[in-house]
Amino acid sequence: MNIYQERNVSMMMDLYELTMAYGYFENGDMDTRVAFDVFYRRNPDQGGFAVFAGLEQIVEYIEGIHFGEEDIEYMRGLKLFSEDFLDYLKEFRFKGDIYAFPEGTIMYPNEPVITVVAPIIDAQLIETGILNIFNHQSLIATKARRIVRAAEGRPVADFGGRRAQSIDAATYGARAAMIGGVSGTATVSAAQMLGVSAIGTMAHSWIMRFEDEETAFRAYAKLYPQNCVLLADTYDVLKSGVPNAIKIFNEMKEAGIPLTNYGIRLDSGDLAYLSRKARKQLDAAGFTDAKIVVSNSLDEYTITSLLKQGACISSFGVGERLITAKSDPVFGGVYKLAAVMEDGKTVPKIKVSETVEKITNPGLKEVYRVYDPDGHAVADLITKKDETPDMTKPYRYVDPEMPWKNRHFEGCSVKKLQEPVFINGEFVGEKKNIKQLADYVKQQLSNEIWEEEQRFENPHKHYLDMSPDYYDMKMSLLHEMREDK
Amino acid sequence: MNIYQERNVSMMMDLYELTMAYGYFENGDMDTRVAFDVFYRRNPDQGGFAVFAGLEQIVEYIEGIHFGEEDIEYMRGLKLFSEDFLDYLKEFRFKGDIYAFPEGTIMYPNEPVITVVAPIIDAQLIETGILNIFNHQSLIATKARRIVRAAEGRPVADFGGRRAQSIDAATYGARAAMIGGVSGTATVSAAQMLGVSAIGTMAHSWIMRFEDEETAFRAYAKLYPQNCVLLADTYDVLKSGVPNAIKIFNEMKEAGIPLTNYGIRLDSGDLAYLSRKARKQLDAAGFTDAKIVVSNSLDEYTITSLLKQGACISSFGVGERLITAKSDPVFGGVYKLAAVMEDGKTVPKIKVSETVEKITNPGLKEVYRVYDPDGHAVADLITKKDETPDMTKPYRYVDPEMPWKNRHFEGCSVKKLQEPVFINGEFVGEKKNIKQLADYVKQQLSNEIWEEEQRFENPHKHYLDMSPDYYDMKMSLLHEMREDK
Repeated sequence: MNIYQERNVSMMMDLYELTMAYGYFENGDMDTRVAFDVFYRRNPDQGGFAVFAGLEQIVEYIEGIHFGEEDIEYMRGLKLFSEDFLDYLKEFRFKGDIYAFPEGTIMYPNEPVITVVAPIIDAQLIETGILNIFNHQSLIATKARRIVRAAEGRPVADFGGRRAQSIDAATYGARAAMIGGVSGTATVSAAQMLGVSAIGTMAHSWIMRFEDEETAFRAYAKLYPQNCVLLADTYDVLKSGVPNAIKIFNEMKEAGIPLTNYGIRLDSGDLAYLSRKARKQLDAAGFTDAKIVVSNSLDEYTITSLLKQGACISSFGVGERLITAKSDPVFGGVYKLAAVMEDGKTVPKIKVSETVEKITNPGLKEVYRVYDPDGHAVADLITKKDETPDMTKPYRYVDPEMPWKNRHFEGCSVKKLQEPVFINGEFVGEKKNIKQLADYVKQQLSNEIWEEEQRFENPHKHYLDMSPDYYDMKMSLLHEMREDK
Repeated sequence: MNIYQERNVSMMMDLYELTMAYGYFENGDMDTRVAFDVFYRRNPDQGGFAVFAGLEQIVEYIEGIHFGEEDIEYMRGLKLFSEDFLDYLKEFRFKGDIYAFPEGTIMYPNEPVITVVAPIIDAQLIETGILNIFNHQSLIATKARRIVRAAEGRPVADFGGRRAQSIDAATYGARAAMIGGVSGTATVSAAQMLGVSAIGTMAHSWIMRFEDEETAFRAYAKLYPQNCVLLADTYDVLKSGVPNAIKIFNEMKEAGIPLTNYGIRLDSGDLAYLSRKARKQLDAAGFTDAKIVVSNSLDEYTITSLLKQGACISSFGVGERLITAKSDPVFGGVYKLAAVMEDGKTVPKIKVSETVEKITNPGLKEVYRVYDPDGHAVADLITKKDETPDMTKPYRYVDPEMPWKNRHFEGCSVKKLQEPVFINGEFVGEKKNIKQLADYVKQQLSNEIWEEEQRFENPHKHYLDMSPDYYDMKMSLLHEMREDK
């Protein structure tokens, strides 16, 4: 499934991308190459990191970008653009280069996760689309990872389809959630797209359709003996739901049906209390391996609290607070001009701002992850594009928040984070399946990323350091700007 | 543009819709008709009401629902369903009735905004899709209305595309925002779909592309003299941005170019302070009708605060906090079984719950809006389906929160809120354009809905009353349930 076809997502852009593109076109600026960096400024939920997701859809978006006859017709109707420009758009395909971290990479504020190096019109027209996809999927993957962490090894499933902010948000949100570590999704369109099985059993309407709960459970068990998680809270969990479920499990046992994936689901009430009581009832009846699945407005905070209260829970179904990232639903990725290439030279560009955090990192650059001898990621390092940090001897770097200190990496190794994804408009990357992406996230968090950066409370702030040459270049640009005034 | 085609949004459903549908199929229950109500339980942001949006996309979704060959193939691979059932799905089209409030109707908690009366499989399969669209668009329309109210008559534009939770969320969120009252959107795909002009001018990258701000402004003014809002905060608003803009406006004036839609945009810094200072500079230069457009993380709270501080603002561009409804990003619409029709009679169904607010309103019903002689909506009234409230004499009703009180409507009139949208799977409603929908919202808020329900702080709670017959029916069902235990 491609997000294209019939609906032309190329048109999902701010109008100013077009008004600016037309400006560059009229100024004869079509062939000037520029570099834009995609980065974000703040981790959601005061966390210590974020998970980069959405690259596959960004690739689909870039590969498919075009303007059809009706799109051109609409733009003509705006009475802003010349026919020459509309003809140009008719033939438009992305012709530039894109570099990006591998999808699933743990990322940190202010480092360029994606860099677009392209003719200025090409680079401008893809801004809104890239940001939308980057922001949405990174938001949900990051939130999912927090919830999965809180669940302490218990499976977490995405139940968010009905509360997602649009149909796309349900489908691609589920994808991002799986990258972040949820073990499955109830959303069929997402499972189909990802080539995995969707999960789910029954709603309250199933129970209410039948004359009573017991009959509803029996009908379900007959159909799905291998996937028999019975919804136990339609009437009264402890007086009706669990006793009826036990009755059905006993019938199955007597009939010789193997009880493998079975149990109850609780979707309302005091989940800590009810799950403990239900566990006792199930255990007393001999169903010690019956699962207790809970759902109902869960997130990392409620899950942490439930487990602290000794709730007896086998797995979690998480809906609205995952699929909208309710506690912090905006991922603020931005797309900033870093350099202009003209007359054979590269001019680094910097945006100064009334707000200090909004000053950008100028120029063409590389980002390296720096590992200590144990393989832990101790910092990320920004260098100029053509530098290769030599780690065979102590490497001096600058901490831009404390540039006066004399600091060195010793015995470390580095990995370049950006890889080419498009060169001259051709996809040169590697497509990965959802399991590979989820495994990559897990592997980084298990082996490379400090536990101190992963905790919820006051996580350690990952260092984003600079090579001395890069730092000097940025400072001299800032000084020039000051002299301009 | 239809949200279909190639990507089959019919598959965006929770798996349990399919597992239950198969259960009904296997039990020979396909022809049993049921009624499901869509309602929500809580107004977002502690507001006094919500705006119903999304009906047009629900209609598209229902009209297009189908399962293609690859969808059937995917479902076969789940190994949950018989070939008979897959054959049934292959031919599936929605065959039921749907009733709904007109799109744009002001709505309140716990009243059925949409009612589906359909064969049980049909009704079940559309649950997730209807809820997703209802929840998303009603969320954004309601948020937009709050922001527009805060702006006190100044135009508000949607700038949210890049921060929306997916491409659909940008496009359909912009639609919902326009229903809620924003005057335009920067998102081209949305404007195209709605048949309106998109709005926008330039980004910081435009300014940074040129050797200096003045040159960038001049190049823009040359291209778009009729839409000349210059972004003034790339370097220094008061020392550079506004003075350069004034220089350009003077040049335009001297060249005899009419200055109509022109001014500056501020996107960072202290907007209250900067807008007042910028206004003074513009006025002193004789450009008293130059606009000051502001953007940067705005919502109803920051806008209220800015205006209270005497900020000089002509219009607002609102992005992430509108398009994600950041302060309260989940609209909790639900889909609950209300009745089952079998053996020639209608059996009302009620869901009791450990949580009192989760007890549903059972049975087939109508919702009336009750107007006083001045045309104000004093309450909504739920009756049984076949009742017609007679308002020619005092009408006794029950306030379900204080049922012991003897209450009457006197001199009032009523309007039935639900209208038929589908009958036997055929669309029988009326399609409306975005202006009609936005005007309808505005007209209700100006003429019908009490100001006391519209304020942000402690809004008046709209009454949802019941006819005596309906109340008695609900109570007797609750008593029956109790006796069952």
